[in-house]
Amino acid sequence: MSFTVLAADPASSARRGELVLPHGKVETPIFMPVGTQGSVKTLHPTELDLLGAQIILGNTYHLWLRPGHELIKELGGLHDFTTWQKPILTDSGGFQVWSLSKLRKITEEGVHFQNHLDGSKMLLTPELSMEIQAALGSDIAMLFDECPPYPCDEAYAAKSLALTTRWARRCKDWITANEPRSGTGRQHHFGIVQGSIYANLREQSARELVEMDFDGYAVGGVSVGEPEEEMFRAIDNAVPFLPQNKPRYAMGLGTPPQILEMIGRGVDMFDCVMPTRIARHGMAVTLDGPINIKNLIHAKDPRPICESAHPHVAGFSRAYLRHLFRAGEILGLRLLSFHNLHFYLRLVSEAREAISAGNFLDFKKNFIDRYTRNSQSTTP
Amino acid sequence: MSFTVLAADPASSARRGELVLPHGKVETPIFMPVGTQGSVKTLHPTELDLLGAQIILGNTYHLWLRPGHELIKELGGLHDFTTWQKPILTDSGGFQVWSLSKLRKITEEGVHFQNHLDGSKMLLTPELSMEIQAALGSDIAMLFDECPPYPCDEAYAAKSLALTTRWARRCKDWITANEPRSGTGRQHHFGIVQGSIYANLREQSARELVEMDFDGYAVGGVSVGEPEEEMFRAIDNAVPFLPQNKPRYAMGLGTPPQILEMIGRGVDMFDCVMPTRIARHGMAVTLDGPINIKNLIHAKDPRPICESAHPHVAGFSRAYLRHLFRAGEILGLRLLSFHNLHFYLRLVSEAREAISAGNFLDFKKNFIDRYTRNSQSTTP
Ligand SMILES: [Zn+2]
Ligand SMILES: [Zn+2]
Repeated sequence: MSFTVLAADPASSARRGELVLPHGKVETPIFMPVGTQGSVKTLHPTELDLLGAQIILGNTYHLWLRPGHELIKELGGLHDFTTWQKPILTDSGGFQVWSLSKLRKITEEGVHFQNHLDGSKMLLTPELSMEIQAALGSDIAMLFDECPPYPCDEAYAAKSLALTTRWARRCKDWITANEPRSGTGRQHHFGIVQGSIYANLREQSARELVEMDFDGYAVGGVSVGEPEEEMFRAIDNAVPFLPQNKPRYAMGLGTPPQILEMIGRGVDMFDCVMPTRIARHGMAVTLDGPINIKNLIHAKDPRPICESAHPHVAGFSRAYLRHLFRAGEILGLRLLSFHNLHFYLRLVSEAREAISAGNFLDFKKNFIDRYTRNSQSTTP
Repeated sequence: MSFTVLAADPASSARRGELVLPHGKVETPIFMPVGTQGSVKTLHPTELDLLGAQIILGNTYHLWLRPGHELIKELGGLHDFTTWQKPILTDSGGFQVWSLSKLRKITEEGVHFQNHLDGSKMLLTPELSMEIQAALGSDIAMLFDECPPYPCDEAYAAKSLALTTRWARRCKDWITANEPRSGTGRQHHFGIVQGSIYANLREQSARELVEMDFDGYAVGGVSVGEPEEEMFRAIDNAVPFLPQNKPRYAMGLGTPPQILEMIGRGVDMFDCVMPTRIARHGMAVTLDGPINIKNLIHAKDPRPICESAHPHVAGFSRAYLRHLFRAGEILGLRLLSFHNLHFYLRLVSEAREAISAGNFLDFKKNFIDRYTRNSQSTTP
């Protein structure tokens, strides 16, 4: 077993764990910076080390289309291609096919779509997604699923879930036929619980995937436009049916308070493009909530972006950071991207410590109180 | 005296020296990366250290307009504002007023122009240029000059030079009235030799400036569209009339071979935006001449960008660098900007060693032969 629970919070479902993967150990709860196209936006791999990243995410859809999984495999896999030698998780490509391509059509076979780069017609199937992820050589590959939209009626959600389950069996068959099933050196595979807002479907999905026995389980179909309560309910509807001894991953989430709420609900792994995406618009997360560094209020401010900032960023004044954004200097994007990721990684690190210390709920309350009290903005 | 000649090449005018400035020592010949708006494009100050930068350039015009020299002074000067604690040279702003603003009009008083950011009417005078540069707190401030275009007839060149000389006297008067004239902690000031392509005017300009006694002398009005021979001739027409014991600076130049040619003509200091500007278009300088990383030929190439590359860049394959550019990833700009600046800094470092070893002309010939022999491109 490559996942070990090291400590469990007596007052919530939060737990601290360790995941052993081919490229190293990952402490959970963990946040995974997103490196969509083989680069965590604006950052050098040495900076990922500097901010304590333990595992990053790569997007199968993007890397498949450009530069192509065959080329990456030829050059030694995604680790050697990017020089990042710690763990990588790849998604299945399903979500990006759905959100980025045109003329998508879902059939039993897979998803037919038009390549968003050159307009060519392509087909992504469960088997191909597994093959691409195997070629990329990620430590964790995600199963190919259908992610239903929100809102979605129960009949559609059930039909979609049935397809996701049949695709999961095909993924499992591909894995069994193509990969040795032992050791921590092998690629790990996570199933994805779907079922929209319907508790019965979430339970059914979890039970079916657990029956197939994967290395971990994700809760998918969240953060697709639903209210925050629905998102938490989706987690609550899935977690009780997932094994204690396997990691749980909430895909594509969330704000710092949401991450703490989900850790309290038993989630171990998170990824989100938000820290780097908002950085490109001048938004930084701080202990007192998000700020927009472009605001006039920061024009003469000699203070660092946040009292929690890493030394790589803390030497720069808010006044200088604002100047960099106004002048269109790339260093501004770099510094805010670095800071926001550091903020998220520090948050999960402190959550791990709080779980070990047995005071996770206090930590969560104190963090959220301060983060939301003086917030200059409602997002993120 | 803050400049010392440490070694002189017996076979050319090349010399190795050391310049002591308020923020540290600078070895010459030196290349100065350009940080136009208070940031060397795409790079973190720690990366400037990594590539061995000893002095960088800031643009008075840009920093005056945004964020303003008063703000920078309030925040401790340009060094504290940017966190770069090694020497900085600022230009006078004259060249940028001329090349970037609209409705420029030169009068005896100074240059009237329209701010290129907001269209407001502004006036830059010799005294104001000195005042702005003093507020920025650069180690070396450049005198305010008029830079005549190329081509330019002798009558205009003579008239322009006379104005530049009168402005130099006004700069000198401002310095005398406002700054203590002793110690290495004070701001240094460099005069700028003008005179276009006319040997008699270059000589006259050099003599007049030397008579006024500055800390160093630049050759200006080069790299304004003239043929390469004219550029070298402008250097040759000025250097004999400049003192041996003061540093010489060729402004805004050049390609790697041009820099070696000018070192051989007795020039000590260089700056150029080319290394970072061409990087943004995917161009990298290598020992075998410039290459464009976006070319298909690099698609599967596992080799580093150049055998001379710094470890910060050398771990990445040409294939990966090409992918970053095609995918529009900022890391690509960063890595090529870093590499090109490293290439220039390595070039002047090796030139210094060659001068000390007494084999500068051999080094120059070998470098230029290889650089131009297999060149894929005619620029830079
Ligand atoms: Zn998915
Ligand atoms: Zn000038």
